[in-house]
Amino acid sequence: DLSLPQPTWCRYLILIAAMLVARTYCDVWMIQNGTMIERLDDNIALVNNFLKLGLNELKLRFRVRLTKHLYDEYLKGYTYYKMGNLDNRIANADQLLTQDVEKFCNSVVDLYSNLSKPLLDIGLYIFKLTTAIGAQGPASMMAYLLISGLFLTRLRRPIGKMTVTEQRYEGEYRYVNSRLITNSEEIAFYNGNMREKQTIHSTFKKLVDHLHKFIFFRFTMGFVDSLIAKYIATVVGYLVVSRPFLNLSDPRHLNSTQPELLEDYYQSGRMLLRMSQALGRIVLAGREMTRLSGFTMRITELMKVLKELNSGKYERTMVSHQDKDPNAVERVALVPGSGQIVNVDHVIKFEWVILVDSLSPSLCFQVRSGTNVLVCGPNGCGKSSLFRVLGELWPLFGGRLTKPERGKLFYVPQRPYMTLGTLRDQVIYPDTYEEQRRKGISDLVLKEYLDNVQLGHILEREGTWDTVQDWMDVLSGGEKQRMAMARLFYHKPQFAILDECTSAVSVDVEDFIYSHCRTVGISLFTVSHRKSLWKHHEYYLHMDGRGNYDFKPITDETIEFGS
Amino acid sequence: DLSLPQPTWCRYLILIAAMLVARTYCDVWMIQNGTMIERLDDNIALVNNFLKLGLNELKLRFRVRLTKHLYDEYLKGYTYYKMGNLDNRIANADQLLTQDVEKFCNSVVDLYSNLSKPLLDIGLYIFKLTTAIGAQGPASMMAYLLISGLFLTRLRRPIGKMTVTEQRYEGEYRYVNSRLITNSEEIAFYNGNMREKQTIHSTFKKLVDHLHKFIFFRFTMGFVDSLIAKYIATVVGYLVVSRPFLNLSDPRHLNSTQPELLEDYYQSGRMLLRMSQALGRIVLAGREMTRLSGFTMRITELMKVLKELNSGKYERTMVSHQDKDPNAVERVALVPGSGQIVNVDHVIKFEWVILVDSLSPSLCFQVRSGTNVLVCGPNGCGKSSLFRVLGELWPLFGGRLTKPERGKLFYVPQRPYMTLGTLRDQVIYPDTYEEQRRKGISDLVLKEYLDNVQLGHILEREGTWDTVQDWMDVLSGGEKQRMAMARLFYHKPQFAILDECTSAVSVDVEDFIYSHCRTVGISLFTVSHRKSLWKHHEYYLHMDGRGNYDFKPITDETIEFGS
Repeated sequence: DLSLPQPTWCRYLILIAAMLVARTYCDVWMIQNGTMIERLDDNIALVNNFLKLGLNELKLRFRVRLTKHLYDEYLKGYTYYKMGNLDNRIANADQLLTQDVEKFCNSVVDLYSNLSKPLLDIGLYIFKLTTAIGAQGPASMMAYLLISGLFLTRLRRPIGKMTVTEQRYEGEYRYVNSRLITNSEEIAFYNGNMREKQTIHSTFKKLVDHLHKFIFFRFTMGFVDSLIAKYIATVVGYLVVSRPFLNLSDPRHLNSTQPELLEDYYQSGRMLLRMSQALGRIVLAGREMTRLSGFTMRITELMKVLKELNSGKYERTMVSHQDKDPNAVERVALVPGSGQIVNVDHVIKFEWVILVDSLSPSLCFQVRSGTNVLVCGPNGCGKSSLFRVLGELWPLFGGRLTKPERGKLFYVPQRPYMTLGTLRDQVIYPDTYEEQRRKGISDLVLKEYLDNVQLGHILEREGTWDTVQDWMDVLSGGEKQRMAMARLFYHKPQFAILDECTSAVSVDVEDFIYSHCRTVGISLFTVSHRKSLWKHHEYYLHMDGRGNYDFKPITDETIEFGS
Repeated sequence: DLSLPQPTWCRYLILIAAMLVARTYCDVWMIQNGTMIERLDDNIALVNNFLKLGLNELKLRFRVRLTKHLYDEYLKGYTYYKMGNLDNRIANADQLLTQDVEKFCNSVVDLYSNLSKPLLDIGLYIFKLTTAIGAQGPASMMAYLLISGLFLTRLRRPIGKMTVTEQRYEGEYRYVNSRLITNSEEIAFYNGNMREKQTIHSTFKKLVDHLHKFIFFRFTMGFVDSLIAKYIATVVGYLVVSRPFLNLSDPRHLNSTQPELLEDYYQSGRMLLRMSQALGRIVLAGREMTRLSGFTMRITELMKVLKELNSGKYERTMVSHQDKDPNAVERVALVPGSGQIVNVDHVIKFEWVILVDSLSPSLCFQVRSGTNVLVCGPNGCGKSSLFRVLGELWPLFGGRLTKPERGKLFYVPQRPYMTLGTLRDQVIYPDTYEEQRRKGISDLVLKEYLDNVQLGHILEREGTWDTVQDWMDVLSGGEKQRMAMARLFYHKPQFAILDECTSAVSVDVEDFIYSHCRTVGISLFTVSHRKSLWKHHEYYLHMDGRGNYDFKPITDETIEFGS
């Protein structure tokens, strides 16, 4: 199990806090006992090691919790399918769930440590300084730092624009390069290399000139920075610190010797400096926060979309109005989920079911167990929509659909899906071994299913049901289709949709599949162009893609006509 | 011009060196005058600012020089074409020339500063320590550091393997995620979300377990590191330093007071510590070097390939033996460049010219100015090879080719190339404005060329010849083809190859183009499926893709047969 007891999670939070406090106290101790700096450095290394452990563990545990939460939402029902197919707000869910979650957790934890340490420092130094030289000292220092900080931020503003320009120029430079490669044959025929060299050189020169300017701007800014944030700040700092010492009526002049006073003076000065450094680190952490806000936005968007999808709200209207003619058929207001689904065994009944579009037919027909239906029509006529509605993947836009519950209807696509796992998993997917045993289906029966579709050799070759392979790669197209049939035999659903799924299977195996399905009572909806399959079906459903459909029994004439 | 005078380049090298020395001396001064650390920090900030300027400028100038050198090679003749089409050693020249060159230059300069400062430090401290406490002290310290360093490197070895494992697990985790999205419909139909959740969770758990292990390993290593490289090193250091002080016969006991001796002792200790820190930085720089070696390898490979291409050596044999049958035609040893090219005006003569492959025909035919030839045959029959040989893009594998020199033969592809630049540049490409004036062709004449191909409106719309646009995007397919024709009129070559290049041009403009070419004496090789074009040609060259060809006059029967 991935969830962790609350205490473990908290323990690392506390470890980090303790290590940060320890480091701050090391700093204070260092200021007060200035000589043996090296020994303390060693202790700081030790504290840092613990701190790193705490941070890394916290990041990892945060990531585990967030990932677990997101996957619970993502894999509830078939939200993962809705996200890619019914909604278009999240484009790259896999990247969000893996890399972005990791980066987000790292940023949050880093920000926690990068903010709490300087905040702690500032609080501590303000307290120490206030007791040493009064509240006025740290207050005026903070005021100077804030004002100079605002001033510097203002001065630094062109840097953002210059970075954007740099990236644009770099992009242009790369573009002229890839352009040369793309068009190299034409350019070579034209003998245009001198002309292209000019273009590349002028683009590069523009970039280089900008970079020179940028480097010197940053150099100048570095000076101004040093001047305002270091030199003048130091002067201000020592001025602030020296005030109480210059005041001869101060009580400390009575109680201390001259060297003690001097030591006191330097200590206060150093603390003030540390305080301003801590403030600088907070500013840096603030910059980091913009990075974090990007991640936060993406993660919250993902969470929002997951929640809405789970409550049945989609942002992309599924109705594609390819035909904008307002006179074309009176339009019904299409609301997803406005249709009704009734679960009854052994019957599929469409009553004025609207598939997706107002251009798709309102279907009315009924199929009982024992009847096979051939579904035909041109590409885009609505076959896939029909199956998606039958599989309850798409919401019903109108009408009433009577069908067995979800698990009793199977869909087999042209390129069947093989799961990651053992050979057994391929046959019993999505069941687990426990479920197989609970159903009382022995391995011998599984082997029989494989033999039925002429896949027995795979088990013989692998020797055991527990071989793990990337079956998607290992099996050929035809083997995958036959494996999907073995899976169908295993699950014995009341109905199955075979969507071009025997296209790579030989005719004798195909015949066996259809007669076996009839024997065990699986009724089939078939999409196929193979003439040899007509004989296995009693009805055909033909949609013409323009809103009309036929549902008729297959007779000898139909077969004649169909060919 | 992008080249810089040598002194500028050197100036920054010297600036960096000076700044590094300055920083070392700041360190030494800091050790000897331990109290006012903060003031010195400020000076270091100043030195660092100069150092950053020097490094950035050096990187940029290095990049400029290297880029210039590489482009000189890359754009010599048509090396850029050869690299992509005749040789297959360098796959992504554009990325190498832009990003990798930049990263290489940055790494080299960073390594220069990261190595020279610690080396300088070590030298200086060894010298200072030797004069202070004798050569034995620093020598035994160095020995301890080297031995412990080797020991730690050995201990750290599993980290590399663990990093690889981490990346593999992260990759697997990402894979199961994208797999779910790719197969979401099938999985949703199968109701397989619980099964997939198990897979994803077990993959994630494997990753998390590994990360836990990794974090704790690094934590333990951090302890061992601190212990060996800091605690024991400090102890060893002070032992080494204290030896001469414990020796009471040492002359320093006679000349110094007790506090002076103590100060002396601490100074030596600190220097020793700095020396070991410098050694640590060299180790870090060594790790950086592996990164650099990757860039270096890629850049040197690029330079090698450029040099070899410029001297006519290719690594991919251009002969594609699709037919491996040894009985198929007696094979000639094909050596690129073994054919002979003779430059004669107004005639193109193939004498037993072998195009690429021993399966392609040995061509023998002759065309004089004034004769248009239609080239036909199935895809892959050798039309493109013929044109590449005519354009001297491909080396001749055998036979003798008589043709006008390169500039007097033009090739116009189906999607003509538009250069980055002004409207004028599109017409006169690859000429420059200076060359246009030198040729004595006025803008009025240019306008006439545009009018001839019904593109006059573009000049009228833009108002001036000097409008810069991305003409590749701005012009439609047909406009680009007509622009290429205007370019042909401007250059008036003796021969031109029109490769499906009037497919988006109306028939009347096409007729005008052919009659204009005849008027001004441009003879044409045409590849086209348009029947209307037969009448403009006197001969046809038909290659059947199996080594046979026909070169025959076009008669009324041919036209009959061709349709």
